[in-house]
Amino acid sequence: MDIVRSVAEMQKTAKEWKRSGKSVGFVPTMGFLHEGHESLMQQARSKHDLVVVSIFVNPLQFGPNEDFERYPRDEAHDRLVAERNQVDLLFIPTVEEMYPTHQSIDMQVTQRVNVLCGRTREGHFSGVVTVLTKLFHICLPDTVYFGLKDAQQVAVVDALINDLNFPVELQPVATVREDDGLAKSSRNVYLSEQERTEAPYIYKALQDAKKMVVDGEKNPVIIVREVEQFINKHTNGKIDYVELLSYPDLTTMKVINQQVILATVVQFKHARLIDNIIIPLA
Amino acid sequence: MDIVRSVAEMQKTAKEWKRSGKSVGFVPTMGFLHEGHESLMQQARSKHDLVVVSIFVNPLQFGPNEDFERYPRDEAHDRLVAERNQVDLLFIPTVEEMYPTHQSIDMQVTQRVNVLCGRTREGHFSGVVTVLTKLFHICLPDTVYFGLKDAQQVAVVDALINDLNFPVELQPVATVREDDGLAKSSRNVYLSEQERTEAPYIYKALQDAKKMVVDGEKNPVIIVREVEQFINKHTNGKIDYVELLSYPDLTTMKVINQQVILATVVQFKHARLIDNIIIPLA
Repeated sequence: MDIVRSVAEMQKTAKEWKRSGKSVGFVPTMGFLHEGHESLMQQARSKHDLVVVSIFVNPLQFGPNEDFERYPRDEAHDRLVAERNQVDLLFIPTVEEMYPTHQSIDMQVTQRVNVLCGRTREGHFSGVVTVLTKLFHICLPDTVYFGLKDAQQVAVVDALINDLNFPVELQPVATVREDDGLAKSSRNVYLSEQERTEAPYIYKALQDAKKMVVDGEKNPVIIVREVEQFINKHTNGKIDYVELLSYPDLTTMKVINQQVILATVVQFKHARLIDNIIIPLA
Repeated sequence: MDIVRSVAEMQKTAKEWKRSGKSVGFVPTMGFLHEGHESLMQQARSKHDLVVVSIFVNPLQFGPNEDFERYPRDEAHDRLVAERNQVDLLFIPTVEEMYPTHQSIDMQVTQRVNVLCGRTREGHFSGVVTVLTKLFHICLPDTVYFGLKDAQQVAVVDALINDLNFPVELQPVATVREDDGLAKSSRNVYLSEQERTEAPYIYKALQDAKKMVVDGEKNPVIIVREVEQFINKHTNGKIDYVELLSYPDLTTMKVINQQVILATVVQFKHARLIDNIIIPLA
């Protein structure tokens, strides 16, 4: 596995791959790799000649109250994870490599952002689309892999690629779950024993709601209320939000008449758990 | 020569070219092609396997007082011009092809814009970088050709490519001139006979000023005053501006200690003439 830290070298390598007709799968990450990332790498590995993983903690996507400096980093661990998933190249640029000058070009996201978790993360997705634009130009992937655990990010990347005609295919990957349905997360270790038994009811609530929609329920208010009641009944977590929106447009609706996302955040004592389910139009 | 009007078909073709290792030179235009464009096509022709010219009058770069509808269009003429310059492919998308939905991604230019002609064209360069981002992704050029007649546009494209790491090389091309030095322009036909004899003094003024800098003059104020006096002495045109700025950063300076641009706009009765000269650091 190669490790490249220079933007120029990475882009040169990617151009050579392109010229020789190789297909490139790309997994952009902020490092501290876990099973969710591994699932993305495995998907990419199964479909491309070459798999590139980037590790870059992007200062542009951290808000004033989010601590960029304290974001966890562990390159040695990440190298092991990438290696065992047969990644071909790890791209690990410094902040100075990625942002050598004060940028003249400012990218903003004007839709799909002021809902779900984006509501409280102003400017976050501007930073995301800026760094992804740069990474796509540097690594020249055919396909980019993102986990549906962060379905709003997937929706924003979908807008980025479509609006600006990137020659890149977006491949969303299903959330990795424990056997009991709980979405895997590095935060699950912060759950108490009692909370850990309650947490799977979050996904259970989403699944039951999906069944209601599939069975014909068209009223988002009823669906959201059912999910809230179910979570409140089976857990001691505090619901931050339950939202039902069109997907990937992320707009509200009065009647469910298109593919939707049902998403929730539940705050336990020391762990904020997020989960969602996408419900295709029946 | 192929003519492609579909974004999907153009991108598919460009991807196939890439895979087969072909090099692509690209000349983005708004059509109504003239000798300046031909010079760009010829440069591209001499250096690439394939030459693509796009014709797209981009509504996003027109201000509220600039008439998008009335911008001149002549596709039949443009086809002849492209054909005789051995262009391989003309890409002529409609507005609906380029902007099928309301964009979620908004690109702004924050530097290099509030000077020269950009000062009175708010939002113009945002439209320019948006459409170029899309065109670069659709046509996948190795090199893009722009005329130095619009040196500010070249500076903004330089920022776009560098800030966002586009895998594209920018090739600026010298302004095409009449034998007497007057920059070629479709507006020159609006000059009276008398004005036509005066107009070459604009470039003469810039050349004399360049010589002053090369000979050691470091004071921008003196240079600008010389140019103004020379133009006022030899023409009846009204000077809109004479500006000396760093290039391509387009910042002001007290002492000339880097590459600069000396640019002017002179308003004749029915023709607004623009010209500039770039003066490398001696």
